[in-house]
Amino acid sequence: MNMAMRKSPGMFSKGQQTRAAIVDAALQLAMDAGLEGLSIGSVAEQTGMSKSGVFAHFGSREELQLSVIRAYHERFEQDVFFPAIRQPRGLPRLTALYENWMHRVADEAGAGCIYISGAVEFDHRPGQVRDALRSMVQVWLVALEKAIRQTQMVGDLDARRDPHQMLFEIHGFILALHYEARFLRVPQAVAHARAAFDRLIAKSCEPGSAQDHGEQPSDQPK
Amino acid sequence: MNMAMRKSPGMFSKGQQTRAAIVDAALQLAMDAGLEGLSIGSVAEQTGMSKSGVFAHFGSREELQLSVIRAYHERFEQDVFFPAIRQPRGLPRLTALYENWMHRVADEAGAGCIYISGAVEFDHRPGQVRDALRSMVQVWLVALEKAIRQTQMVGDLDARRDPHQMLFEIHGFILALHYEARFLRVPQAVAHARAAFDRLIAKSCEPGSAQDHGEQPSDQPK
Repeated sequence: MNMAMRKSPGMFSKGQQTRAAIVDAALQLAMDAGLEGLSIGSVAEQTGMSKSGVFAHFGSREELQLSVIRAYHERFEQDVFFPAIRQPRGLPRLTALYENWMHRVADEAGAGCIYISGAVEFDHRPGQVRDALRSMVQVWLVALEKAIRQTQMVGDLDARRDPHQMLFEIHGFILALHYEARFLRVPQAVAHARAAFDRLIAKSCEPGSAQDHGEQPSDQPK
Repeated sequence: MNMAMRKSPGMFSKGQQTRAAIVDAALQLAMDAGLEGLSIGSVAEQTGMSKSGVFAHFGSREELQLSVIRAYHERFEQDVFFPAIRQPRGLPRLTALYENWMHRVADEAGAGCIYISGAVEFDHRPGQVRDALRSMVQVWLVALEKAIRQTQMVGDLDARRDPHQMLFEIHGFILALHYEARFLRVPQAVAHARAAFDRLIAKSCEPGSAQDHGEQPSDQPK
């Protein structure tokens, strides 16, 4: 699945509407209690449907979990990805992607990010759910890496810097924000995440600065 | 609890030995399936004891979870903290703390870090277990922050840098390592974590480098 692919809106049948309502309720449950906290029974209770009614739409708990992951991915695209790609390529777009991601992670009062909680739940549980979750996360990380490369191409970041390394560090800041904001309740968590990003993109930290070892030639001199 | 406090070894009663064996088994279960995956029943099964036998030592699942957190804390101290504080104050000690933490997070094949998984499990579950987990994590983060301040005091890091900010970033790199190594299975995860730390402590990224805004006076000029 590509971050830039969108379903076209259209008419939905009653069955599709019911299915969408179930997924919606299941997503709320999963963001609260984790994907592993989901069951046909808990979703039936949440929606006021019978277990067999839920079962008619999702033949298994696994199918329900997979649908929740897809639904989360769509929301993530809508909240984080699409508003940012309206910004010009380069630092404005990269910064918007990071800012939107930050808000998503820090603002979800009482609701977790299943890309973060799911990783902890499923790192030792092989299967379709883990594979789906991993591939959704990877779609997002690839989109972010592309934005880093574009930022280098337009000259806003030194081309000698390793995009994978930058991606690792950006991901780390978001994970630390999630940890500080949600678990430790540190009031400065968002300020820390913003300052970390600013330091990451600062010219003074680039290979061409004071500590340059001159090991790699720059193919995009400023 | 202080990171530097140690129990003196001594003679243990049969009851204490049994209790220690139960905690040991419970810790293994928790590192695999999470603290929420623990139950009197699962621990009884793991140890080959009766449920009532386990119950005689731990009157509740919560008491079991709390004992596991304390046991994890002791192991964490032994593996990560104590070997590092034998290094000289400053960059050698800070680097050792980070390296040992990295190994703890990346090497635990099949076993998770309950400071990371527990944060996700308990951020929305108030109670004694969350409080205990949070206070153990905070003991560790305070110890790390102290090592950062010492590194500044001995002149290995610019004193103008904010220790809380550095701690946030270091924590982020460890969380990203955990995510990449355990969930995404990125082969370069450890290399990324090491490079991130090197960039963090690099002189070129310090306030006195090319991008210095001169807003804060240095009270510890090099």
